[in-house]
Amino acid sequence: MLIVMKSAASGEEIQAVIERVQSAGARSHLVRGEEVAVIGAIGDREHVARLGLEGSPGVDSVVPILKPYKLASSEVRQGERSVLEIGGRRVGGEHFALVAGPCTVESRDQTLATARIVKDAGAMFLRGGAYKPRTSPYAFQGLGEAGLRILAEAKAETGMPIVTELMDVRDLEPVLAVADVIQIGARNMQNYTLLTEVGRAGCPVMIKRGLSSTLEELLMAAEYVLKEGNENVLLCERGIRTFETAYRFTLDLTAVPVLKQLSHLPVIVDPSHAAGRRDLVEPLSLAPAAAGADGIIVEVHPAPDEAICDGPQALHCDDFARFAAKLDQVAAIAGKRIGAAA
Amino acid sequence: MLIVMKSAASGEEIQAVIERVQSAGARSHLVRGEEVAVIGAIGDREHVARLGLEGSPGVDSVVPILKPYKLASSEVRQGERSVLEIGGRRVGGEHFALVAGPCTVESRDQTLATARIVKDAGAMFLRGGAYKPRTSPYAFQGLGEAGLRILAEAKAETGMPIVTELMDVRDLEPVLAVADVIQIGARNMQNYTLLTEVGRAGCPVMIKRGLSSTLEELLMAAEYVLKEGNENVLLCERGIRTFETAYRFTLDLTAVPVLKQLSHLPVIVDPSHAAGRRDLVEPLSLAPAAAGADGIIVEVHPAPDEAICDGPQALHCDDFARFAAKLDQVAAIAGKRIGAAA
Amino acid sequence: MLIVMKSAASGEEIQAVIERVQSAGARSHLVRGEEVAVIGAIGDREHVARLGLEGSPGVDSVVPILKPYKLASSEVRQGERSVLEIGGRRVGGEHFALVAGPCTVESRDQTLATARIVKDAGAMFLRGGAYKPRTSPYAFQGLGEAGLRILAEAKAETGMPIVTELMDVRDLEPVLAVADVIQIGARNMQNYTLLTEVGRAGCPVMIKRGLSSTLEELLMAAEYVLKEGNENVLLCERGIRTFETAYRFTLDLTAVPVLKQLSHLPVIVDPSHAAGRRDLVEPLSLAPAAAGADGIIVEVHPAPDEAICDGPQALHCDDFARFAAKLDQVAAIAGKRIGAAA
Amino acid sequence: MLIVMKSAASGEEIQAVIERVQSAGARSHLVRGEEVAVIGAIGDREHVARLGLEGSPGVDSVVPILKPYKLASSEVRQGERSVLEIGGRRVGGEHFALVAGPCTVESRDQTLATARIVKDAGAMFLRGGAYKPRTSPYAFQGLGEAGLRILAEAKAETGMPIVTELMDVRDLEPVLAVADVIQIGARNMQNYTLLTEVGRAGCPVMIKRGLSSTLEELLMAAEYVLKEGNENVLLCERGIRTFETAYRFTLDLTAVPVLKQLSHLPVIVDPSHAAGRRDLVEPLSLAPAAAGADGIIVEVHPAPDEAICDGPQALHCDDFARFAAKLDQVAAIAGKRIGAAA
Repeated sequence: MLIVMKSAASGEEIQAVIERVQSAGARSHLVRGEEVAVIGAIGDREHVARLGLEGSPGVDSVVPILKPYKLASSEVRQGERSVLEIGGRRVGGEHFALVAGPCTVESRDQTLATARIVKDAGAMFLRGGAYKPRTSPYAFQGLGEAGLRILAEAKAETGMPIVTELMDVRDLEPVLAVADVIQIGARNMQNYTLLTEVGRAGCPVMIKRGLSSTLEELLMAAEYVLKEGNENVLLCERGIRTFETAYRFTLDLTAVPVLKQLSHLPVIVDPSHAAGRRDLVEPLSLAPAAAGADGIIVEVHPAPDEAICDGPQALHCDDFARFAAKLDQVAAIAGKRIGAAA
Repeated sequence: MLIVMKSAASGEEIQAVIERVQSAGARSHLVRGEEVAVIGAIGDREHVARLGLEGSPGVDSVVPILKPYKLASSEVRQGERSVLEIGGRRVGGEHFALVAGPCTVESRDQTLATARIVKDAGAMFLRGGAYKPRTSPYAFQGLGEAGLRILAEAKAETGMPIVTELMDVRDLEPVLAVADVIQIGARNMQNYTLLTEVGRAGCPVMIKRGLSSTLEELLMAAEYVLKEGNENVLLCERGIRTFETAYRFTLDLTAVPVLKQLSHLPVIVDPSHAAGRRDLVEPLSLAPAAAGADGIIVEVHPAPDEAICDGPQALHCDDFARFAAKLDQVAAIAGKRIGAAA
Repeated sequence: MLIVMKSAASGEEIQAVIERVQSAGARSHLVRGEEVAVIGAIGDREHVARLGLEGSPGVDSVVPILKPYKLASSEVRQGERSVLEIGGRRVGGEHFALVAGPCTVESRDQTLATARIVKDAGAMFLRGGAYKPRTSPYAFQGLGEAGLRILAEAKAETGMPIVTELMDVRDLEPVLAVADVIQIGARNMQNYTLLTEVGRAGCPVMIKRGLSSTLEELLMAAEYVLKEGNENVLLCERGIRTFETAYRFTLDLTAVPVLKQLSHLPVIVDPSHAAGRRDLVEPLSLAPAAAGADGIIVEVHPAPDEAICDGPQALHCDDFARFAAKLDQVAAIAGKRIGAAA
Repeated sequence: MLIVMKSAASGEEIQAVIERVQSAGARSHLVRGEEVAVIGAIGDREHVARLGLEGSPGVDSVVPILKPYKLASSEVRQGERSVLEIGGRRVGGEHFALVAGPCTVESRDQTLATARIVKDAGAMFLRGGAYKPRTSPYAFQGLGEAGLRILAEAKAETGMPIVTELMDVRDLEPVLAVADVIQIGARNMQNYTLLTEVGRAGCPVMIKRGLSSTLEELLMAAEYVLKEGNENVLLCERGIRTFETAYRFTLDLTAVPVLKQLSHLPVIVDPSHAAGRRDLVEPLSLAPAAAGADGIIVEVHPAPDEAICDGPQALHCDDFARFAAKLDQVAAIAGKRIGAAA
């Protein structure tokens, strides 16, 4: 950590900061420039972080040098990328993960029909929500355990591993019984008790970036899971909130290459929730594939017009095979293939 | 809800939308302009909301007309504002609520010392966190139940009602035993299971606006609590995330008068977390008082340099009485007084 | 335009709004829902826009229905896309435009060397700045007319059309003598006098989206040029400002398909300024190519370490041919080729 | 400037950076922490800024230490604040500037009537636009020189100094003949040729912050004017663009105390354009007065319903005296008075 002093800081103020640093068990290192002095604080990062020097007399700003996450960082693996093995599928490296399925599990028929179609088109994982976080308390909140049973049936029939969301720690047990990947939604990205519990459960976790969360905060959320010894974490970019109102969220494509530099964890993109409109899902799927994403998670419905939730953003089942083939072509240029042989 | 058709929409496309609207049990109303047609859908708002016409052929956009919250809206009380009674204090109307105390309950001494000082200066509620949501899993997470016991002691001694945060539904019972107001933090503003449970518990709730939550989403969070029959909800603006990096968060002062128009609920402002710096707390407290806020919640510490958490933003205890007096002067111009006689 | 009344609006208030609408020469159309009334105002859009009913008694909100741009809209060409012909090259349709060159014209050698290399690798246009808008008044502001002369020489030698920025209307004449495309920078996107003058000049114009400009505002900027009878307008997405600080700007990839829906004008992407870092330029070039962009404009330098301006984001000349070939592969999947035969 | 190396940076990479720094004529200073090395570059700030080390091998990030503005900084005056004298009025220090008038000069009657009323209520400056930057090329663009003549007449009659906008350098001469303060609008905040020219003209300048400009960029815009020897610069906060859509712009109140720390220049707030709605103008005027702003600039109209431009945000003339008196009360608590004796 570097403490930049004001140009008007007195010698006493500089000395006081040095003493604070040393009292925290860190070494200090003073560099005097022509206009300002800078003090480096070297030592245990948690102790140094706790110094709280921002408000102190003579201090202009405090610049953190070390990244606050460790286990999620690319340094921890010396730059080698994680390839996760989940339900017999690999994610990361040359393996482009195509996760597809309905937004919400509405019925046995809808879910099984969708599962069969996306499987035939090459999807590797089936997504589907039994618990739905809804902005309105009056909206449909998901089928709950009945929905989980339908997902279990789809898994039994198609063999596809299941990605499904957990919202409430009290539902952990039934979700664990079905899920191959537990999804933490954007609104719960900083629900630390939930992150800690899924970390302990050991099940693979896909963490969606919060609508206004920085990449550093996303990696800190991953750190909560990793710290419990659970190494199977997928990061998911799903659009951020900006000033633009011409579409729902702004897909942050730059997050893909930047996350891959900062972290060894695979990076998935959700074009459906970012766009909120079917016609944008294809370009917003091909773009991350070209940019090196490790997969996408996309919504598909046999009859989007009748979907209970988010129908306008679901791809039509009968267009899905064409979509998947084009996606595979683009992923290939970036050195990946959908479902590359495990 | 209004469905705006594209100018190139065909008669069949317009007819198809009308039929979708009617099939949802709503009445439709077609207005043809010179360039585009607009279809009004009139009926039960949940049914209409579920139509999902955004992606349909010929549809340009869908414009919601009715606000999605009901119980939180100002209409529900015909414009009359709520005045809550909490622990013998009133909040709202002419009563300006001064909530003060440490960010985190660190020790018995620190908490009791702060409580005495803020009480003497006119504070009406004591704030203090026993459970702390921290971005880093390596940071201090609060004293937990030991912290709650210290708050209970401070309450017993000073008579001040307690405002404290709940993060995990599993901690509801011990928190209820001490809290007069349960705080839902910004990161949990869309933790719907938590909101529903505090709604059922009946205890007054202060909901902090998420860092990138719209005012409508904040009011929908309040609606989750109100829907359970719990009418004691305080809204809290605490800064939003913008592009500016010269300070921590951007206090959204416009939210104060706008929330007071949209809703009957009292509006509190948290200048400490918005600013992150002590020297900004005073201007960011006086400003909302001038703009008609119903109170502020502010952090105070006897020795901020030694605070475990957020010391740089805590006011010094020995400056607090002067601060409170100046705040009261400004509030008076806006027609309110700190602790106006209940 | 639709005027949504408050639910508490009185009959008199509704009547007053209707009279305002009619007094502006528009027809009014009243729709009464169960909770609120909505008044449609049908007529000349400029008159209606000027009504200013937002603050009127009983009015909840005013919803514009017609888009404020006309000549830039896709409707004006019944959905057919513009293909521009500039200096013997085509942009739009199946023609993917690769615009490359130095950020700043620094010297004859640097510019000519870069021009030769990018031409050999298939670039269609040479970019280079003689006038540079710089945040700091102390920074290098470009070579000015001497820079224009170097660009003229590069054009004479390579035959590549020139893209260069105009900042000041007083420099229009010398810039016109060299430029095949005048670039309006992001900071000048709403410099309406500049837009009007380049509109009158008739020279093709590339308008860069402002850092926080909406797509509608970008299209309105194009409208300023189109209105003067100049049909050769290229839109350029170059990253917007968001809360994220892990990289310079957030490339708004969703803007590509959305602009192509809203407008007939070609859409170019500038990955270099969006990213500010060389290692991000390749993924942020491939992504828009996959998403259907009509071209990219990218910075290349023979010795980026010695560049006067923005060296860290310039591609190395000796890597450019590989880059261009990969880009062409991705563009091909989206139905375009670099420099498709004119 | 500090260059933070990656933890995996080799000794050669560190040495290469040190040599780059020294080759730029700066001294280097290496600090090795336990995990990373940091290199301080000490020397002429422009040379160091030009190093462009962001992309170099082994470099993690580059942290600027010195602020890029000098003449606008508070250090340049050792913390003393500027009090400007303009047309016999003082702005800054204990003098709260109330600038009021119509958005647009529409007619002689409207302008003179407004001028008389705001003068009687204590306003110190008359605002009014003759040149109007409009998002739409089809909208009213101002009366131009005819508008300037009306302003001259209002000034002659009331004695109030005039604040009016300049958009185009070619209009500088006629604007200078009337204006006591030239306003640079938000859209032109980074129009550097305009800033340089008003800097040279010597006339006092009020620079409005761009919609997504950082405070640092605003101060750099001021620096463009100050560098030409023109010391009479007012900074104006007028709302920034955020994700919130419940109102027009987000007034950034935190900018007021932060700008006053960073710079010696007076800080004015424009509540009218921030809010876009009359009912928000009063709270958004009182709030900055409480927070220590040096003045506000506010729109007033005798018949807002008939205003050509921005009527919904104009205060009614007949309510202005009450408004000004309340504002003065709040300013007094912050140690200022409207029109304190010069």
